[in-house]
Amino acid sequence: MERTLINELKCGSKVKITGWLHKVRSLSKVSFLVLRDRSGMVQCVVDNNQLDIQGIKLESVLAIWGNVVEGKNKISNIELQAEKVEVITLVKDELPITINKSPMESNLETQLNNRVLSLRNEDNNFIFKIQAAISQGFSEFLIKEGFTQIYTPKLVSEGAEGGTALFKVNYFEKQAYLAQSPQTYKQMMVAAGYERVFEIGHVYRAEEHNTSRHINEYVSMDLEMGFIEDEQQLIELETELLKFILCKIENEYKGKFEELGIIIPQIREAIPQITLQEAIEILKAKYCRSDLVGDLDPLGEKQIYQYAKEELDSEFIFITNYPRSKRPMYTMPKGELGTRSFDLLFRGVEITTGGQRINEYSELVENMKYKGLNPEDFGFYLESFKYGMPPHGGLAIGLERITAQLLQLNNIREATLFPRDRTRLTP
Amino acid sequence: MERTLINELKCGSKVKITGWLHKVRSLSKVSFLVLRDRSGMVQCVVDNNQLDIQGIKLESVLAIWGNVVEGKNKISNIELQAEKVEVITLVKDELPITINKSPMESNLETQLNNRVLSLRNEDNNFIFKIQAAISQGFSEFLIKEGFTQIYTPKLVSEGAEGGTALFKVNYFEKQAYLAQSPQTYKQMMVAAGYERVFEIGHVYRAEEHNTSRHINEYVSMDLEMGFIEDEQQLIELETELLKFILCKIENEYKGKFEELGIIIPQIREAIPQITLQEAIEILKAKYCRSDLVGDLDPLGEKQIYQYAKEELDSEFIFITNYPRSKRPMYTMPKGELGTRSFDLLFRGVEITTGGQRINEYSELVENMKYKGLNPEDFGFYLESFKYGMPPHGGLAIGLERITAQLLQLNNIREATLFPRDRTRLTP
Repeated sequence: MERTLINELKCGSKVKITGWLHKVRSLSKVSFLVLRDRSGMVQCVVDNNQLDIQGIKLESVLAIWGNVVEGKNKISNIELQAEKVEVITLVKDELPITINKSPMESNLETQLNNRVLSLRNEDNNFIFKIQAAISQGFSEFLIKEGFTQIYTPKLVSEGAEGGTALFKVNYFEKQAYLAQSPQTYKQMMVAAGYERVFEIGHVYRAEEHNTSRHINEYVSMDLEMGFIEDEQQLIELETELLKFILCKIENEYKGKFEELGIIIPQIREAIPQITLQEAIEILKAKYCRSDLVGDLDPLGEKQIYQYAKEELDSEFIFITNYPRSKRPMYTMPKGELGTRSFDLLFRGVEITTGGQRINEYSELVENMKYKGLNPEDFGFYLESFKYGMPPHGGLAIGLERITAQLLQLNNIREATLFPRDRTRLTP
Repeated sequence: MERTLINELKCGSKVKITGWLHKVRSLSKVSFLVLRDRSGMVQCVVDNNQLDIQGIKLESVLAIWGNVVEGKNKISNIELQAEKVEVITLVKDELPITINKSPMESNLETQLNNRVLSLRNEDNNFIFKIQAAISQGFSEFLIKEGFTQIYTPKLVSEGAEGGTALFKVNYFEKQAYLAQSPQTYKQMMVAAGYERVFEIGHVYRAEEHNTSRHINEYVSMDLEMGFIEDEQQLIELETELLKFILCKIENEYKGKFEELGIIIPQIREAIPQITLQEAIEILKAKYCRSDLVGDLDPLGEKQIYQYAKEELDSEFIFITNYPRSKRPMYTMPKGELGTRSFDLLFRGVEITTGGQRINEYSELVENMKYKGLNPEDFGFYLESFKYGMPPHGGLAIGLERITAQLLQLNNIREATLFPRDRTRLTP
């Protein structure tokens, strides 16, 4: 008999289901088992003569044959009257953590130490279904818009931005580094004739600080496009992209969001935008923040979110025109001091940095010098600007960050399957 | 005026196109320019009074306004009568390599050293459109089959298979390695309740040999699925997956394959399969190969391809039942000496290794010992088998290899945007 998925069970049918033993309640003659597979859970009524439930610990893998009937229980309005039960994989030990409660009782460290088990918890499991939907939505939208997916190297001979902390790799006789972003390569791929490219892949930052919003290995969803007029075209593209992703998630997972009490944000027309200078003025006026120069700090981002939510009715806000002194050498200047760059804040956390790039060779050389960098350190990257680099720009969205913000998680590690941080390298 | 893509030009319309200057032929009064964008090429007729073509080198980025008319030229049956030409990015230098000829005249080393330019060549450019279609097809098919896309760490504390050459990374005070495969993590994700997972990401092999079929950083398309009966279910899944990918490519790119004279292989029903023992017997009988024990060498793979093509009319062939001594510790044994594992050869090159895995804790411990490994070295991986690991298995397809085999390229580097090998770490 073929297996039926739990979310496809229909009253009146005879089926075989397989999955993990989620919960057990034994009475004298029958036991109530909750079985869980990738699609959901169902209560099964098992005659105690059919199965000696005593030796079978929770999370054992079972196959149950039986009849689907109407039933009243906490999980659904059906149940399975078991006719036969088979143990596929027996669990002999007590579980180190309890996973069948929502929310889980164990702290994040314990959950991460027992990741295979903690991911079986319904709420945790859901996080990575959403993460998959976000990255899939990113791909689908961009393919529709004529973008080509690329895979660029993570083993590199130099950093993309100069100076930022890089992990060193022993590459045979040479010294290599782990790429901190696909920045140089995605720009080069625009120039290579693809014009519109995107990449979803790991990037690495050897930053020493250990905060709830940083991990040292994360998934960056990058895009870069040629023949743009200015940075506003990128802001429009990201707005449409986010609408598409949120709509996809609403279509597929609306019910579960309602169950968790989390609101899927709506983007009506445009996402509001303010310049960094305006943001700093607002923070000064509304929150007495006179300490901010040239950038926002995490508290400032939260305060701007409060402003965006209360005054502009938006969960998102673009901050534009970051100063030239604070942005990498490839950023297109705007006037004397500004740039054609932007950040996107989502519920008070930066999830995107983007902007138009310099595309003229001589301008780029000049800007490298302005930033105190030596153009000779950027050999093949700089070289590619000699042979017809069109006007272009791009942006990146941190996959774990957008997942965490959408699901209102407190720590980015909750939205990372196996996080890597200052102290954690396992599991 | 909005830009029109070249493949969307229609006779009788007034348009603006932008792209790279691909070719020039000047007569006394007019010049014929071929302009190239991401969608194709078109011939433009420019009055020499409108544009002084002398100072403008090939690959300059231009915008051309004009009328689309019927025309007879090598590229298409339309041409653009230019009314205005604007130089967007001027190229001042001669190109280091010629890119507007098919096939290119420069050798692979030179092409890789000038990657941004060599990728603009029509044939090279096409390779990575096909690569993107393959990886997209892999995702689409698996999502349809209930798989969840995952992102597992590439910075790991130990290797997946023990012994294979790993790149070392300085991870703060610790020693880390670059993952040689997502093997342990994808199995753990089956156990984490997702049952069916896939990942497309970079993996790393610090192997010293420099051959036309190896690179040290490559993209592995991995899948793993729970609740399987045996390895035949994986073979069936991969067969359907490949049919889906090939059908997608045929739908989108049939014309270009015909132009290049490359046949897109057809998979009728099943892909033929033979055991490794049968393969060795065939090689002995047909090609006097008496030197092969327990595995095929690259020449043997090519000879088996010849056999598959001539006798079985297939570009693909599965080789099954590899010996236990030659397969990693997680491989499900079959009888005393065999395993439930397989390779898939495509046009004489292995593009997949897969199989059923051991799912019982004690069997896995025993097999680790059989392979001379210490179970204590596999801490969190082994631990996850204690709490209900269902029967499962999986496979991996090398993205660059399948791309190279499909397009009949001689060297895997041709199917890698920026290859990393024994001596190459740039661009």
